[in-house]
Amino acid sequence: MKVSPSVEDQPLHGLPLMWLRDNCPCPRCRDPRNGQKLFQITELPDGLALGAVRRTAGGVEVDWAPDGHRSAYSTHWLAANRPGTDPGDRRGETGKTLWTAADLDGRLPEADWTEYLTDPAVKAHVLESVVDLGFALLRAVPCREGQVLEAVRTFGYVRETNYGQLFDVRVEPDPNNLAFTGARITPHTDNPYRDPVPTLQLLHCLSNAASGGDSGLVDGFQAAALLRAEDPEAFAVLTRTPVPFRFSDARTVLEADRPLIDVDGHGRIREVRFNNRSLSTLRLPAAELDAFYRAYRTFAAITLRPGLQLDFRLSPGDCLIFDNVRLLHARTAFEESGARHLQGAYADIDALAGTLAVLHRERAAAGEKFLDGLAELFAGEGAVAYLGERVTMAQHMLQAAARAEEAGAPDALVAAALLHDIGHFEGPVGGEELMAGTDNRHSHTGADRLSDWFGAEVTEPIRLHVAAKRYLCAVEPAYYDRLSAASVYTLKVQGGPMSAPEVAAYEANPYAADGVAVRRWDDEGKDPDASAPDFSHFRPLLTSLLVPLLRTT
Amino acid sequence: MKVSPSVEDQPLHGLPLMWLRDNCPCPRCRDPRNGQKLFQITELPDGLALGAVRRTAGGVEVDWAPDGHRSAYSTHWLAANRPGTDPGDRRGETGKTLWTAADLDGRLPEADWTEYLTDPAVKAHVLESVVDLGFALLRAVPCREGQVLEAVRTFGYVRETNYGQLFDVRVEPDPNNLAFTGARITPHTDNPYRDPVPTLQLLHCLSNAASGGDSGLVDGFQAAALLRAEDPEAFAVLTRTPVPFRFSDARTVLEADRPLIDVDGHGRIREVRFNNRSLSTLRLPAAELDAFYRAYRTFAAITLRPGLQLDFRLSPGDCLIFDNVRLLHARTAFEESGARHLQGAYADIDALAGTLAVLHRERAAAGEKFLDGLAELFAGEGAVAYLGERVTMAQHMLQAAARAEEAGAPDALVAAALLHDIGHFEGPVGGEELMAGTDNRHSHTGADRLSDWFGAEVTEPIRLHVAAKRYLCAVEPAYYDRLSAASVYTLKVQGGPMSAPEVAAYEANPYAADGVAVRRWDDEGKDPDASAPDFSHFRPLLTSLLVPLLRTT
Repeated sequence: MKVSPSVEDQPLHGLPLMWLRDNCPCPRCRDPRNGQKLFQITELPDGLALGAVRRTAGGVEVDWAPDGHRSAYSTHWLAANRPGTDPGDRRGETGKTLWTAADLDGRLPEADWTEYLTDPAVKAHVLESVVDLGFALLRAVPCREGQVLEAVRTFGYVRETNYGQLFDVRVEPDPNNLAFTGARITPHTDNPYRDPVPTLQLLHCLSNAASGGDSGLVDGFQAAALLRAEDPEAFAVLTRTPVPFRFSDARTVLEADRPLIDVDGHGRIREVRFNNRSLSTLRLPAAELDAFYRAYRTFAAITLRPGLQLDFRLSPGDCLIFDNVRLLHARTAFEESGARHLQGAYADIDALAGTLAVLHRERAAAGEKFLDGLAELFAGEGAVAYLGERVTMAQHMLQAAARAEEAGAPDALVAAALLHDIGHFEGPVGGEELMAGTDNRHSHTGADRLSDWFGAEVTEPIRLHVAAKRYLCAVEPAYYDRLSAASVYTLKVQGGPMSAPEVAAYEANPYAADGVAVRRWDDEGKDPDASAPDFSHFRPLLTSLLVPLLRTT
Repeated sequence: MKVSPSVEDQPLHGLPLMWLRDNCPCPRCRDPRNGQKLFQITELPDGLALGAVRRTAGGVEVDWAPDGHRSAYSTHWLAANRPGTDPGDRRGETGKTLWTAADLDGRLPEADWTEYLTDPAVKAHVLESVVDLGFALLRAVPCREGQVLEAVRTFGYVRETNYGQLFDVRVEPDPNNLAFTGARITPHTDNPYRDPVPTLQLLHCLSNAASGGDSGLVDGFQAAALLRAEDPEAFAVLTRTPVPFRFSDARTVLEADRPLIDVDGHGRIREVRFNNRSLSTLRLPAAELDAFYRAYRTFAAITLRPGLQLDFRLSPGDCLIFDNVRLLHARTAFEESGARHLQGAYADIDALAGTLAVLHRERAAAGEKFLDGLAELFAGEGAVAYLGERVTMAQHMLQAAARAEEAGAPDALVAAALLHDIGHFEGPVGGEELMAGTDNRHSHTGADRLSDWFGAEVTEPIRLHVAAKRYLCAVEPAYYDRLSAASVYTLKVQGGPMSAPEVAAYEANPYAADGVAVRRWDDEGKDPDASAPDFSHFRPLLTSLLVPLLRTT
């Protein structure tokens, strides 16, 4: 079933054939409009084998036996999807950050409602927090009834239940649920008697003038992971025992049999249900009941362990979004006479994760558009003369980048060398003004212009590359002697060699050495006879350095 | 942890103490309004032990050590919740009827829309079919756009997705999904790239004039059970391997990692996801990829096995409801020029099962109300004289039932004996008319009156008890001699002893012997000196015989 190694098919060595064929990207196999496969797995022939295998510019082309189908796989796809690089369960514990209250150290993942609505980076931060930490808090959400449904619609769809599209959490005269009393509620998940359980809950605070009624969150995955580490047998019991949950009122009967801790096929935690209120009567054999209750009480004790629970208080306008199959939420008791009114809604995390994925995709598309703009600068403005040097601006920067690449510099420094003079382009003060005696502060302009798209490891060496010239002139007398005539002129405009205190300040900058390195490639990039690759050579490197989405700090 | 056996605590022998205490029904432990528990499992004391244990009229009372809490458990509860009687996973394969097309033999579980809306028994039949078989078909649903949402609202809530509250299945110019083309679609489940996946799908046919476009359903649980029986290793691979499913279009990215076959902690099948179209690239180690693809193709071949798939054609007005984590649905190709328009919606089966449970609960409540009415008849009308006998009507029927009970008769015949003359009450022709020479056909009136609530094993012996008198007079001469004077008189009104053809016809009735048995207890129930229990003695027996909900045939 494996591809046998040979000179011809080396790129496909060790790849399972059925897998390879199932992933054929040709338009007969995959609908180009939506990426859906157009065949059933049973339609692939038995006895699948490679016929001719040819290397191509972008990858490898295969003629399949016995049916003669032709598939082309790009080098990029083959690298990205190499067997053995399973990313794991997107919904489970893999890749999520498990936490205790101390880990968060009072820093709630939060955002202002208006910023959340208007800034994709803020929105991505909130949604990522829900996926990664299991919750986020929106602040200053308008205190209007029904607003919680608007909050859901910013990332997904309301899961309507017998409680309605939304539910009011306040004291009710004849409550059908403990939530609608003033009683203390210990950490729990909601609706374990539903199957599928809603994977998200939102709680929007409209008023909270009552004494008490504070909120708490416990990371149920963390609690379950602690149980697994401390008492593997109890963990095993809770993952394999379906528990009957039940809710019943005048209009509804809901029942579900699910384990307290659900794991995937690899044993990774993926769902927690924890709610003694609606845990109905188990009817396992007596010995299993004993084992279950022992495990259950051990797990319950962990969820109540000091330090696990994050405590905070919802204020009017706060809207908490949390993963209802991961986080346990709790509430202290409150005076039933005090006004306390939350509106809640259920939703599902798949749509939230999908909205986040679209934000990332849009960000990536905008990044490529930004790189398109840089490419145009290199081809347009960049083709003009560079401030008295014998190379164009584009040649200068491409040479600097080439020297950095040749020196084996990290990608970020190659990018910094490539883009170090980008501030000369379209800046508020052009290069001509600099030559006429005005510092255009092009290092800062360039760094600022790039900071939406590249991290500090790219922008800060750029920001320092002029200071690095002044620094080197101060500490390395031979350096000054090697400067080009134009550089000597602009050095004066830029402030001359550094004073001793300026040198000390420069050396304290964590990017000081990187700034010097870029400076030296800058100085080397002024040779009219030197060759350098063009911008497209560096573009994949730039793409890999694009910051996915800005996070709020 | 177990209760030690002794004379005092015998009813609790062998019951796990923590389980017993967790199920304390007292109002401090359980909110009487909704049955929710009012304590957390960690609040129960360590070292739990029984103090005093007392038998009571209804069960047993316990004083708990160390905290002195008192619990009372009814005999009924202890019997109903005995450890070791686990009913299994309500969502999984347990208790469901797995099928092949041959098993259904062309009989689709179906109902007329108007009857479904107006007759709770028809509605229960439809909902039970969805739970048990995985699908049902509503006929003559109004062909209005959006009607499918009305259908969902009869049992639950719409699961809105990126496709909207509903989606149109018809040919679209630039389809984002294969469903919106005329292509053949092999058996699959929908939305495996969602987590949680919608557990129900509805498809409402508005028009189907196209050539082709027929529907098929395959019981995915059946297919998975066949795989488990035929290739346990392949089954194990598919249950433990999370598969990346993915869907992406201009506005959406959805991803989920779930196994093709999900089992519960006891290995019982509970969910099937099957859709090669959206199965994305697995990145398991190569050996696991080989094993997965082998298992996947084996399973896929089973789903296509002749005989598994139920084929039918949706006509305008048909609305198919099916379990989307159990049943695979398919469609033959159709001419894109022919008009074919379905509207679909997603929903969840927990609410459907809850609606069914409420119907059953309402039925049980109505049954108890019916028995209340019977109790009133025994106490009111029943207290009057019985057609010239020296006992009252109530005494007569209670004596007949008591004689049946003493004879060890099955419950149904005790009930038949108890209720055999119920047709004399409030009938169109009263007992007085019978004595005045008009047959009131009270045996039929009674059987008909009871037929909404009791099965044929109760009603048919009642229906036959007058014919049985005529039969016995024909075949057993000594019987006639033992009749009471009133019975001799009414025999004439009822037609006298049977003729030979009538005897043969009587004997052909499957309930002939039961009718004779009731008749003999009827004759024995006319002794003014005999004692008999009162109606309340028989009530639990009647409750146990109540037909849960009438099914359509």
